[in-house]
Amino acid sequence: MNVSEIGQGLVDLCREGKFDEAMAAYYAEGIVSVEGDGSEVVGLVACEAKGADWIANHEVHGIEVEGPFCGVNQFVVRFKLDVTMKSNGQRIVADEVGIYTVEGDKIVREVFLFAGM
Amino acid sequence: MNVSEIGQGLVDLCREGKFDEAMAAYYAEGIVSVEGDGSEVVGLVACEAKGADWIANHEVHGIEVEGPFCGVNQFVVRFKLDVTMKSNGQRIVADEVGIYTVEGDKIVREVFLFAGM
Repeated sequence: MNVSEIGQGLVDLCREGKFDEAMAAYYAEGIVSVEGDGSEVVGLVACEAKGADWIANHEVHGIEVEGPFCGVNQFVVRFKLDVTMKSNGQRIVADEVGIYTVEGDKIVREVFLFAGM
Repeated sequence: MNVSEIGQGLVDLCREGKFDEAMAAYYAEGIVSVEGDGSEVVGLVACEAKGADWIANHEVHGIEVEGPFCGVNQFVVRFKLDVTMKSNGQRIVADEVGIYTVEGDKIVREVFLFAGM
């Protein structure tokens, strides 16, 4: 699979809210996941746990996904996530992009960047 | 200036079509500019020449700019450029993102990625 096919596959699954399936299908075992504040999680198991934690703490009302925007070994996806944070009941639309780096058939790095920071 | 301030400054100038002013204000002398196909231009002078060449070859009808989406040392901007290519008269909307890497007060690398590739 090339960058464009991996990007489109990830976008298609994310549009259906299937974030865990997207990780299982496309993430390398050694995936490095970086948040906007620079904090990193390393490895597929830890990354899946981070995803499960996010799901447990948010009620999802709507997901908009745009992209992929593709280059040689990277693609970008834009997410608008309409969610209520269960911790405080606050409803927000998280507007963010993910930058994904591909090596071979797998995503080896994802970096999330946020609007309004 | 931090990443967010540089990103917002670049977005503000690009919204007004002032791409050359954005380069002059925020690009490092050694800027590396990478297109979606992996081709690179190195240095501010070469980058400005590439920009002038683009301007000369496109009639711009509209510019939409979204962002910046910010992280620790990177930001992403999304561009929708409604243009007519003077070479063949074809009007298109180029839908792309730029990934900008910041060191100190300057942008040292930009990578453009395209939708529909």
